[in-house]
Amino acid sequence: MHYLCFTFLTVSIRDGEWYTMGKERTRMKKILVGQSGGPTAVINASLLGVIKAAAMHGLTVYGMVNGIEGYLKGKSVNLTEYGKKADLELLKVTPASFLGSCRFKLPEDLTDPVYPEIMKRLNEEGFDGVFYIGGNDSMDTVDKLGKYGELTHSPIRFMGIPKTIDNDLVLTDHTPGFGSTAKYVASTLREIILDAGSYLYPVVTIVELMGRNAGWITAASVLARSEFEPNPVLIYLPEAPFELDRFLKDVKEAMKKQSNVVVCVSEGIKDKKGNLICESNASRGTDQFGHKLLTGCGKILEEFIRVMIGCKCRSIEINLPQRCCADRTSACDTREAEMAGMYAVEQAMKGASRKMAAFHRISGSGEPYQMECCLVNAADVCNKEKLFPAEWILNGNDIAPQFLEYALPLIQGENTLEYENGLPKMLTPIYRVPMD
Amino acid sequence: MHYLCFTFLTVSIRDGEWYTMGKERTRMKKILVGQSGGPTAVINASLLGVIKAAAMHGLTVYGMVNGIEGYLKGKSVNLTEYGKKADLELLKVTPASFLGSCRFKLPEDLTDPVYPEIMKRLNEEGFDGVFYIGGNDSMDTVDKLGKYGELTHSPIRFMGIPKTIDNDLVLTDHTPGFGSTAKYVASTLREIILDAGSYLYPVVTIVELMGRNAGWITAASVLARSEFEPNPVLIYLPEAPFELDRFLKDVKEAMKKQSNVVVCVSEGIKDKKGNLICESNASRGTDQFGHKLLTGCGKILEEFIRVMIGCKCRSIEINLPQRCCADRTSACDTREAEMAGMYAVEQAMKGASRKMAAFHRISGSGEPYQMECCLVNAADVCNKEKLFPAEWILNGNDIAPQFLEYALPLIQGENTLEYENGLPKMLTPIYRVPMD
Repeated sequence: MHYLCFTFLTVSIRDGEWYTMGKERTRMKKILVGQSGGPTAVINASLLGVIKAAAMHGLTVYGMVNGIEGYLKGKSVNLTEYGKKADLELLKVTPASFLGSCRFKLPEDLTDPVYPEIMKRLNEEGFDGVFYIGGNDSMDTVDKLGKYGELTHSPIRFMGIPKTIDNDLVLTDHTPGFGSTAKYVASTLREIILDAGSYLYPVVTIVELMGRNAGWITAASVLARSEFEPNPVLIYLPEAPFELDRFLKDVKEAMKKQSNVVVCVSEGIKDKKGNLICESNASRGTDQFGHKLLTGCGKILEEFIRVMIGCKCRSIEINLPQRCCADRTSACDTREAEMAGMYAVEQAMKGASRKMAAFHRISGSGEPYQMECCLVNAADVCNKEKLFPAEWILNGNDIAPQFLEYALPLIQGENTLEYENGLPKMLTPIYRVPMD
Repeated sequence: MHYLCFTFLTVSIRDGEWYTMGKERTRMKKILVGQSGGPTAVINASLLGVIKAAAMHGLTVYGMVNGIEGYLKGKSVNLTEYGKKADLELLKVTPASFLGSCRFKLPEDLTDPVYPEIMKRLNEEGFDGVFYIGGNDSMDTVDKLGKYGELTHSPIRFMGIPKTIDNDLVLTDHTPGFGSTAKYVASTLREIILDAGSYLYPVVTIVELMGRNAGWITAASVLARSEFEPNPVLIYLPEAPFELDRFLKDVKEAMKKQSNVVVCVSEGIKDKKGNLICESNASRGTDQFGHKLLTGCGKILEEFIRVMIGCKCRSIEINLPQRCCADRTSACDTREAEMAGMYAVEQAMKGASRKMAAFHRISGSGEPYQMECCLVNAADVCNKEKLFPAEWILNGNDIAPQFLEYALPLIQGENTLEYENGLPKMLTPIYRVPMD
């Protein structure tokens, strides 16, 4: 397989227009930032971007501790002050939510008392901008608060900054977080392939990767292939129906060509009827505590291969490290995540609200990678999912070369970690630090 | 908890005496090296050590492909020649067995025809030294071949070079491979702890680590603790009996103090009677293929906590990455692994045979770390296991500070990886390279 090589040239920020949204907005002085949903390895780089833009423009910035849920409980912290004593640059290499996260869905009904409660608190504390770093659901929060703000003629701006390893947000070329996860997956796959290939006897290794509905992360495993290494030879995404018979045939076919067969599957692979493979074990007995066993699809396929083929088979669920490993982050991803945070603040200063900072790839096929930030309506992003393109899935078990061209620029560059006593130096989460 | 900080000063090689072993040995000219058993992240650094020492002393070095098993099938490669075209320095950062591995136990009976077969082949090919990089079983191979060689008055020297992430070889302060796994475990735990702590609600995370009988790897998770972070709060090793009731009490107690509870367990934890927890699910029904489900102890404990406490609980099996991750290797470990390979060659040149290169810590408690190589009898190492010291296990669920003093020097220093197109550069295993 031929790999296209890209040079990372420039990333520009497109100049935003002035947004008026019905009334002229006042100059921003004090802003609030929060993080929500499952963390990524670069979600704190976006936070750093917000803090840097705030500092550059003389704004005071507060952080919600544990998102909107924590803020409702009165938990916030002055990050401008905190930045005077802590080395916030470490946010670039600190995975997970530095501010703490939450999963808190605002009610559909804008007459719910939670809305005036939040708005009252924001007004009392003098915030004129709220920035929410998150995925799908967080954009829903941004849109609802923005809508309520507009209805009540509030001058407060509400902005979304995307993050998700799943890369499933619409209207953006990709999401901050995906590049680092893709780099982690490809690097780790290379090592697993080496390890699994050490022996003479045939061995099938099934690697289960994150992605319930969207196969982007699993597709990134194709980046692990190299000149003398065809593994992972089989890749199954949730977007293509998964059939056990077909899978068995695929594995047997692969075993004819090589003794080391590495297969990657998304956690969310489904059969033709849309039933999850990981839930297909209806006939399985209960465990010793009387509960139906919950297991991943990797484990199920491992047993299947062991029974049907009888060879050595191992399944590996990569689990949390694929979203929180600090030393396999992509420098491109970190830089872009930070940029998205800065861009959101700058656009809010120009009057934008109810928007999400998005990425637009301006380079064409075969050209050096170039990306710019732009704004999209938060309302158009929330409650939607960008699936892996059907035309990039080959034969139900492989990934088309177009994906390589798409993904390779996103995994370029490395971040340098500092080490202290043998371990990477990270910033202690704000919720762990005793405050005066 | 207070962390002792060590400065890595010097590692010296103790001068070996001349070994005569019954007859004066001839000068070595051509040696053979092999790798065996489960790989580590630094097993190839030991191989590099052998190749370097051979080059320094003008010896030609061949590699067995897939250990003694592959060698018996005629698979070997001239590494001296190969080194002229490949960048063998990459062996330092290439995990898994570059030469391929095997699990091949030589028969106890030295009159078995396999012994003259091996010896004939070695003689025909003109080898006068054989170096075997491996664990317990490999030292058994070294000893048996050496013994057979002595009985048949062969001048060929047989030497063992230790490797195992498990750190369970006797007569050596530690084993090459352990330091890198310890560093990987501690770093990854720090990230998992951060990720798991992102939410407001209580969550129990159970991390299952390698180690069937010896708890060294799991004990290394204690290195993840820091000033504001008491996690992992509970650590269970196979050396201390594991009781579910006690475990439940421990977790409940921990949850009173913090909402984020991270627990580390060895895969091999056993009850009072010595039954593996991962095999305790006798009452569990068969899977859909009619087979009893095999699952790790982490998954079993996850279900147990979910049922008994009802909180969010996740189990993570770290799996292969703990032994094959290239960018969390310890520079100390890599350097020592290489040194062990060099030392074995140099000692064989002086006449040693049926020995294993071992590590002897010459620094006392509180002093800067200093280590030297020495030789031990392969026969005294094989078929024995060095368990985690009972006196370093506190209360059945914690690790004593003495372990920190022991382990911290072993995780110091980082190896710099080269990147190519966004992924770490590694050497393609010899068995994957098309040979002329």
